[in-house]
Amino acid sequence: MDFSSKLLEQAVDEVSQLPGIGKRTALRLVLHLLKQPESQTVQLSEALLNLRKNIKLCENCFNISDTQLCEICANTSRNSEIVCVVEDIRDVMAIENTNQYRGLYHVLGGKISPMDGIGPSQLTIKPLIDKVQAGKVEELIFALSSTLEGDTTNFYIFKQIERLEVKTSTIARGISVGDELEYADEITLGRSITNRIPFENSLKN
Amino acid sequence: MDFSSKLLEQAVDEVSQLPGIGKRTALRLVLHLLKQPESQTVQLSEALLNLRKNIKLCENCFNISDTQLCEICANTSRNSEIVCVVEDIRDVMAIENTNQYRGLYHVLGGKISPMDGIGPSQLTIKPLIDKVQAGKVEELIFALSSTLEGDTTNFYIFKQIERLEVKTSTIARGISVGDELEYADEITLGRSITNRIPFENSLKN
Ligand SMILES: [Zn+2]
Ligand SMILES: [Zn+2]
Repeated sequence: MDFSSKLLEQAVDEVSQLPGIGKRTALRLVLHLLKQPESQTVQLSEALLNLRKNIKLCENCFNISDTQLCEICANTSRNSEIVCVVEDIRDVMAIENTNQYRGLYHVLGGKISPMDGIGPSQLTIKPLIDKVQAGKVEELIFALSSTLEGDTTNFYIFKQIERLEVKTSTIARGISVGDELEYADEITLGRSITNRIPFENSLKN
Repeated sequence: MDFSSKLLEQAVDEVSQLPGIGKRTALRLVLHLLKQPESQTVQLSEALLNLRKNIKLCENCFNISDTQLCEICANTSRNSEIVCVVEDIRDVMAIENTNQYRGLYHVLGGKISPMDGIGPSQLTIKPLIDKVQAGKVEELIFALSSTLEGDTTNFYIFKQIERLEVKTSTIARGISVGDELEYADEITLGRSITNRIPFENSLKN
């Protein structure tokens, strides 16, 4: 693509670095911003910068939070001894939407994926094991997507805690294998939490 | 959508104001930025702000340009008496890509579209008419997309200049009716410029 303006080219280059956004789409988005009042671009830029610079992760569950402890962890009416292990914040949002779950979460920040160069140390697995070893967890619910990477991650964590006194379970799958959690409808997802099964049982299938 | 963070919510709100980007996609994009080095968000924000604040339009053709006169208008080896009327800068880029055209452009900034509240005064039609009235244009090539709005705009301009001494033509359509110019392949688009026909002829079909 040949641009008539360096400023335009730079903006399109940056926007097209976002996943799933090609040069053509980036150009369309940037030209849209040019037709809008300057305030819209200012607000967009400031919101992104503000988030990126001031982002905090809950020191207990690694959920994105504006405070040291996220709203869920800070809520004393929730059962802190049940911990649901999820990949990212979108899964927390999806499960919260079902209104079926009153425990806490642990956000791993991804799945073990050697293909993408993501090992256990890049995820929040260590603090999770620490939490379990400290005897603070009665039950761990694995709620990663049932892909190869999700299963690998579940198993990796399970192996390190199976000798500890903690119940493990995985959410029941009404959701078809390979589907992403966040796209499941609320009823299916709510039911899959209610009907969770011991993790060992899921290994037998 | 319930967010665990106001900062996150604001960022998603702003991103989802872009056309074709829903809340879910916006959340995906924002979470992606959070996983990247902070520098990427800084560069993205700065590029957008920089463009929006310093954007200039070529004072002759209204193409986006970093200088008063765009590269095309400033190029003295091009024929300034032939002016190709296009909707936006993407069309300029598409036609330049064909390497078939050596005249200049006039970027309208849109099409007349009463449905979207866009009238002639919001487009750069007045300066175009002025240019023609000043006797600076020998031929005007209409290259708007052949939609109802494109045809309306062509006709509106044509009516105001038909008594003046200027040749008018429209690009030949190998492109199917209703298709956007910018998605046409280069050969078809190049040929449609070479085979342009007098505008009056296009009214007879
Ligand atoms: Zn938390
Ligand atoms: Zn120009």
